[in-house]
Amino acid sequence: MKDKMVAMVKRIQDEICEAIEARERVPFHEDKWKREGGGGGRTRVIQGGSIFEKAGVNVSQVYGTLSPEAASEMGGGHDSSDLSFFATGVSLVMHPNNPFVPTVHANFRYFERGDGSSWWFGGGADLTPSYLFEEDATHFHQTFKNACDLHDAAYYPKFKKWCDEYFYIKHRGESRGVGGIFFDNHKAPDAERAFSFTKDCADAFLPSYLPILDRRLGSEFTSAQKDWQQIRRGRYVEFNLVYDRGTKFGLNTQGRIESILMSLPLTSRWEYCHETEKGSAEEALVDVLKNPREWAP
Amino acid sequence: MKDKMVAMVKRIQDEICEAIEARERVPFHEDKWKREGGGGGRTRVIQGGSIFEKAGVNVSQVYGTLSPEAASEMGGGHDSSDLSFFATGVSLVMHPNNPFVPTVHANFRYFERGDGSSWWFGGGADLTPSYLFEEDATHFHQTFKNACDLHDAAYYPKFKKWCDEYFYIKHRGESRGVGGIFFDNHKAPDAERAFSFTKDCADAFLPSYLPILDRRLGSEFTSAQKDWQQIRRGRYVEFNLVYDRGTKFGLNTQGRIESILMSLPLTSRWEYCHETEKGSAEEALVDVLKNPREWAP
Repeated sequence: MKDKMVAMVKRIQDEICEAIEARERVPFHEDKWKREGGGGGRTRVIQGGSIFEKAGVNVSQVYGTLSPEAASEMGGGHDSSDLSFFATGVSLVMHPNNPFVPTVHANFRYFERGDGSSWWFGGGADLTPSYLFEEDATHFHQTFKNACDLHDAAYYPKFKKWCDEYFYIKHRGESRGVGGIFFDNHKAPDAERAFSFTKDCADAFLPSYLPILDRRLGSEFTSAQKDWQQIRRGRYVEFNLVYDRGTKFGLNTQGRIESILMSLPLTSRWEYCHETEKGSAEEALVDVLKNPREWAP
Repeated sequence: MKDKMVAMVKRIQDEICEAIEARERVPFHEDKWKREGGGGGRTRVIQGGSIFEKAGVNVSQVYGTLSPEAASEMGGGHDSSDLSFFATGVSLVMHPNNPFVPTVHANFRYFERGDGSSWWFGGGADLTPSYLFEEDATHFHQTFKNACDLHDAAYYPKFKKWCDEYFYIKHRGESRGVGGIFFDNHKAPDAERAFSFTKDCADAFLPSYLPILDRRLGSEFTSAQKDWQQIRRGRYVEFNLVYDRGTKFGLNTQGRIESILMSLPLTSRWEYCHETEKGSAEEALVDVLKNPREWAP
């Protein structure tokens, strides 16, 4: 399973980077890196591109021995006496220049603890627009619902709700974006089918996002709309630094800092007491972030 | 003591705002606010000023009942059975436009727990330059050392070290800035003299910062130097959201979010794998952040 998952996440990285490079003027810059305790990864980043302010697609396969604190944070219902672990995954975050193109994040991962008797999959994808287009949110959710429905009709409702709960910025009383799916500790009904489900979700990423990207790419925008995007970027930073478990895990375990914080936007903005205008497009976005909707019922 | 401290922090807020407004084209915007559980404050902010991208000076006096979690985070060696509290203080953060003018932060505060039998002072001030000018760091530290030395020759070395330890960005292996002083749980040798020490430090703020501001204000800078400042702002955000106890306390206790996050810069930047050039002024700054120096031995 380790090898199969590693091969899958590398293929996903290649396919996503190819699809983006077919649209971008700037190629991905690749860094291969090694982890001191075991394993390594390859990080691919576009910065200052024609479409993306910053886009990173990272794969890693790491193994070694966990600290007791890291082990207890890692979850998975393992036998805590054996601190050896293996983890592999692909994670991506793309922050576009155009405020009408949404930021997107996805992550698909596999863990083993000890001798491999404890294992699980995790993953998900979520969309973070600065401006709400209902057809985009519907398309994104429907694509992942279709992937879920191939396996279990209960998955999408469960993982959509989990996503809304996970990407919640408690101190703002709002979600980071319009959600998607999120799953963790996933081992049902068996390893083969849990892998197959994770793979189908990973394969759903490009069909979920490319049509939205292509549709919004040429939209004209004002500097006020760009400022609003920058304020939304600030909220993205708040979520990732204050709440995101992967980021906290990485910072606490002294992971490769540039890969961990690759998720942060190139630029962001915090205005004191910024308020949206009544009836504006900005207010419509905030309304949906405060009251998550069903996009693919 | 409550009334005396409230009067002192309000006077300090007035004096600082007056000194800044004498230099700024833009006046402070004032918000008076009330806290649901008791008390309130007045927040004064300049945003998009001629000198300051963002500058906030906040006073508050709040009281009520703590949650047991908040009580245990609050410190002070109190009797944990009584959850009533009183807190007042002035806090400020100023982020200038010009990358040669350093960001500055200061905070002076007083707490009581229960019936007032448990009380303590806290405070400090620290300087965060994007470019290192040794004479600025020396002047800033020397000014606070002089205030400390009026009370106890042991204070400055102790509170300088505390400041270096507190404002440390562990995941970057560097300090947020060139430090200053930081003290907490301060009740020695008695309430009157602890107040007097806190007041002298608060009064040292303007003499510590204004000469630096006036000296650097007119410096010309390039867009590359502005970008470097924006990257340093990103580190400021990382510290405040990941480590700062006041920010975490505020977010966890659902405080007034705009006053808590007033400390964040208007704009910031995260470049993937940014590296400073060998022998550059940028490298000189990073070097001092990784190896804190004695500025007022």
